[in-house]
Amino acid sequence: MMKKDTRAEPLNSGGHVMEVINENSEVLVYIDEHRKFLVKPRVKPKLETDRGIINVEDLIGKKYGDFVLTSLNVKAYLLKPSISDYIEKFRRITQVIYPKDLGFIVFKSGISSGSIVVEAGTGSGVLTATLAYYVRPNGKVYTYEVRKEFIEIAKSNIKMAGLEKYVVFKNKNIEEGIDEESVDAVFFDLPMPWRLVEVAYKALKASGTLTIFVPTMEQLLKSINSLRQHKGFVNIEAYDTLLRLYKTVPGEIRPMTWTVAHTGYIVFARKVVI
Amino acid sequence: MMKKDTRAEPLNSGGHVMEVINENSEVLVYIDEHRKFLVKPRVKPKLETDRGIINVEDLIGKKYGDFVLTSLNVKAYLLKPSISDYIEKFRRITQVIYPKDLGFIVFKSGISSGSIVVEAGTGSGVLTATLAYYVRPNGKVYTYEVRKEFIEIAKSNIKMAGLEKYVVFKNKNIEEGIDEESVDAVFFDLPMPWRLVEVAYKALKASGTLTIFVPTMEQLLKSINSLRQHKGFVNIEAYDTLLRLYKTVPGEIRPMTWTVAHTGYIVFARKVVI
Amino acid sequence: MMKKDTRAEPLNSGGHVMEVINENSEVLVYIDEHRKFLVKPRVKPKLETDRGIINVEDLIGKKYGDFVLTSLNVKAYLLKPSISDYIEKFRRITQVIYPKDLGFIVFKSGISSGSIVVEAGTGSGVLTATLAYYVRPNGKVYTYEVRKEFIEIAKSNIKMAGLEKYVVFKNKNIEEGIDEESVDAVFFDLPMPWRLVEVAYKALKASGTLTIFVPTMEQLLKSINSLRQHKGFVNIEAYDTLLRLYKTVPGEIRPMTWTVAHTGYIVFARKVVI
Amino acid sequence: MMKKDTRAEPLNSGGHVMEVINENSEVLVYIDEHRKFLVKPRVKPKLETDRGIINVEDLIGKKYGDFVLTSLNVKAYLLKPSISDYIEKFRRITQVIYPKDLGFIVFKSGISSGSIVVEAGTGSGVLTATLAYYVRPNGKVYTYEVRKEFIEIAKSNIKMAGLEKYVVFKNKNIEEGIDEESVDAVFFDLPMPWRLVEVAYKALKASGTLTIFVPTMEQLLKSINSLRQHKGFVNIEAYDTLLRLYKTVPGEIRPMTWTVAHTGYIVFARKVVI
Repeated sequence: MMKKDTRAEPLNSGGHVMEVINENSEVLVYIDEHRKFLVKPRVKPKLETDRGIINVEDLIGKKYGDFVLTSLNVKAYLLKPSISDYIEKFRRITQVIYPKDLGFIVFKSGISSGSIVVEAGTGSGVLTATLAYYVRPNGKVYTYEVRKEFIEIAKSNIKMAGLEKYVVFKNKNIEEGIDEESVDAVFFDLPMPWRLVEVAYKALKASGTLTIFVPTMEQLLKSINSLRQHKGFVNIEAYDTLLRLYKTVPGEIRPMTWTVAHTGYIVFARKVVI
Repeated sequence: MMKKDTRAEPLNSGGHVMEVINENSEVLVYIDEHRKFLVKPRVKPKLETDRGIINVEDLIGKKYGDFVLTSLNVKAYLLKPSISDYIEKFRRITQVIYPKDLGFIVFKSGISSGSIVVEAGTGSGVLTATLAYYVRPNGKVYTYEVRKEFIEIAKSNIKMAGLEKYVVFKNKNIEEGIDEESVDAVFFDLPMPWRLVEVAYKALKASGTLTIFVPTMEQLLKSINSLRQHKGFVNIEAYDTLLRLYKTVPGEIRPMTWTVAHTGYIVFARKVVI
Repeated sequence: MMKKDTRAEPLNSGGHVMEVINENSEVLVYIDEHRKFLVKPRVKPKLETDRGIINVEDLIGKKYGDFVLTSLNVKAYLLKPSISDYIEKFRRITQVIYPKDLGFIVFKSGISSGSIVVEAGTGSGVLTATLAYYVRPNGKVYTYEVRKEFIEIAKSNIKMAGLEKYVVFKNKNIEEGIDEESVDAVFFDLPMPWRLVEVAYKALKASGTLTIFVPTMEQLLKSINSLRQHKGFVNIEAYDTLLRLYKTVPGEIRPMTWTVAHTGYIVFARKVVI
Repeated sequence: MMKKDTRAEPLNSGGHVMEVINENSEVLVYIDEHRKFLVKPRVKPKLETDRGIINVEDLIGKKYGDFVLTSLNVKAYLLKPSISDYIEKFRRITQVIYPKDLGFIVFKSGISSGSIVVEAGTGSGVLTATLAYYVRPNGKVYTYEVRKEFIEIAKSNIKMAGLEKYVVFKNKNIEEGIDEESVDAVFFDLPMPWRLVEVAYKALKASGTLTIFVPTMEQLLKSINSLRQHKGFVNIEAYDTLLRLYKTVPGEIRPMTWTVAHTGYIVFARKVVI
């Protein structure tokens, strides 16, 4: 279909026919809200759940949105994984940024299709994948990480999400400087961002956005103070977000009892000419 | 620069040189956090503030990130407006969706560059602009609105943000059906979304996402119940978000006293084959 | 000491000497924030913890505020339990109202020393104990509960907190009516409070407060609608509360990652003459 | 009535007859949620509202819970003010602690009828009144304030609420020490509480509670660090609270758009023997 070809990316493409699952397709098998599984026919031939077994190879040739029956005759829907589905299934070796913050970070940083961005550190790749998803198809994410083992995990996560061609992994200490120039946005999710304000300043294009994510108050205060002292940033804003997930069973609709109350504070600032 | 040409969109493009302001450029004049003004040299030749006057025509030829002095010798920085800056300055004739929700809606709906999406109602165009921003350069937003005067306002807002070529405005009652087929996502921000579940179902591609935004609990309950009864949607999730903005003056860092505690509940659901 | 005699209650009394622990004293043994134990020398002679063993009988004769060493030479402080300490240690057989709501409920209901109040259902006795604590020494809490086994648990909890003389337990279905008249406040924490608006109205003194606590949105809507239809209540207010606990380790100060996001919605209304 | 005489306090007393309003009675005239007025027949003979005029002297002889008609024939209910009603109507010359925090502070501090407590600074008297309300009838609040004009305002507020006999006002700088000894609880709502940890320690009885309320993060960090360094406090906890008020009009039930997102952080700690 010609229409499809003009679209940016197969990951989320529309089109007037349902997409067909093949042996390399990632599929989110949805039985109910507590039973969601990310499978790929080639990799995991059998999915065993407490609602029955699914022969994953049988998914080949089915269409996204269709369903199969488990060995216990329970419907299992075949969804095309979205970016938030992928991230939910990422292997995590670090504290990660949560969905409550990811969308807001993307929105306030101003990045979008075509943006060139720098991130450190890579960690499990959750923010990396999110940034990559939104800069497609012509943008790029340069992500710095000192710990090699993290890069391997993040690479594998990002490959699963089909985003590897938008990410350049750098096994470097960002304190030594950012190689890229005139980037649209810089993102820091590392322990001492206040030491890196000048590093970010040099890499950013004028009017570009620096985003800092820090878990503790001490880090937040040091980051804000460091930005204020540098003089090369304006519109310094800080936020934190709270998200409540609701139970959606009719007759029992209410916020879930527990929530993630905090992962971090988010600081945004715009580079200006000093 | 060749590099620039491969980028999706001038709105947010990077590149190794600072961008030059011309008579048609939108400029966010930033004096301090309480004094941010969106100006365009051709439209508004003089900006009068309590920190002095700026001759807006003098901005022509300056670069984004640079500053000018007001008549009272106060620095005024010239920022390139981001999507959130534009939206903050949109003319509003309706209750709008706030930044605390916009990023999250985009993230959870799964849309990105290339997506084809449908929205109703257009209202002031805040969600329209946000969706348009992220589907660029090859995606499209079809937005339905029954009230002609709203479409005019929204058009003008979206034109200001430079997003008009990604939006198709439809002065139609969406209860009569959606013209588009196999769209990636449908967004409802209107009074009775529970009456439109089948309308959305027909327009969505399988595995696509329906997003509903409603202010009241009654609307939330009816929307969830309607989705459950339809049977054609799974992964029905509901949320609300809270955002706290912090004062970022060193020595006085704290959440601002007042916040927007609520604009609406957000429901997401995925279409499946019945 | 004469001064002490004029005070309302030994539970929290001050006085110029430290109070001495005896075999019937409840003691909160505090090792650190994760190791708090409620003990009574007569009941539990040995306290075994992963920071060492404490011979609880040795606490007799010590004063509140003092410390002992565990068998591993770790300091264990002997605190006088406060109402919130007791409640934290209550045996719970039901979903209970949390500290984030208890103080607010007491405050908004207007009760205080001397108030006569009615509550249903008793549940685990958490709200019962809280109300009893604040109506001392001359007030009274009449608490209704249909399930005998809950009354036994609640009695035992309330006895532990030393509040039994302020509570009258009633093994009755409150739908059949409240025996007491002209009470200062009525509290409902049961599944269908909207059926009990007239029952509460009859029992309350004019200008008295009805408080309703419900977990779900459906219950909240029905409760508000029922109060509005009855016409005998004004100043109908509804709330929910969020509480964030912070990590208080210097250098790591931040909200704890997880919090209780929701236990229930709280409705307050004042009885007026129809 | 004998029953009434055994009750702690006329402010909130029950009893089997409705209480009669006299010329010195405080009355909360309730027309609707946006029209609540605190009046006293002797002081304010005429109440003019946009729903009509009320001749306040006509309230004399009416009972709480009853209603009168305004000159425009609108019902105006006569409520007995609760502690939260009074506080809402206090004259405020300082930033005050809000209801979202007051109940929680009382609950966590452990104070109740009979407690002897110390507070600084008095400010507008909001916390003072709240503490006084709960320590009645035999407890006492000693409140320190350096600014004489604040004491006058607070005195007048507290007198309006009928709580003056439970409060001792001290026009002293608490940095010079607390006169009282072995008090149950100390409350600090002033700019530099971290300088007063030893002052509080000396005044508190062992096992007593220190409560600190501070608006900013810097103050919170200094307060926690100071408590940790002192070694005489354990169970150091910090919180902040969020409260959402709901619109309670059937069909429009939802959290109000705006809320007070932050007034301060609250720290609690228990004194132990060093």
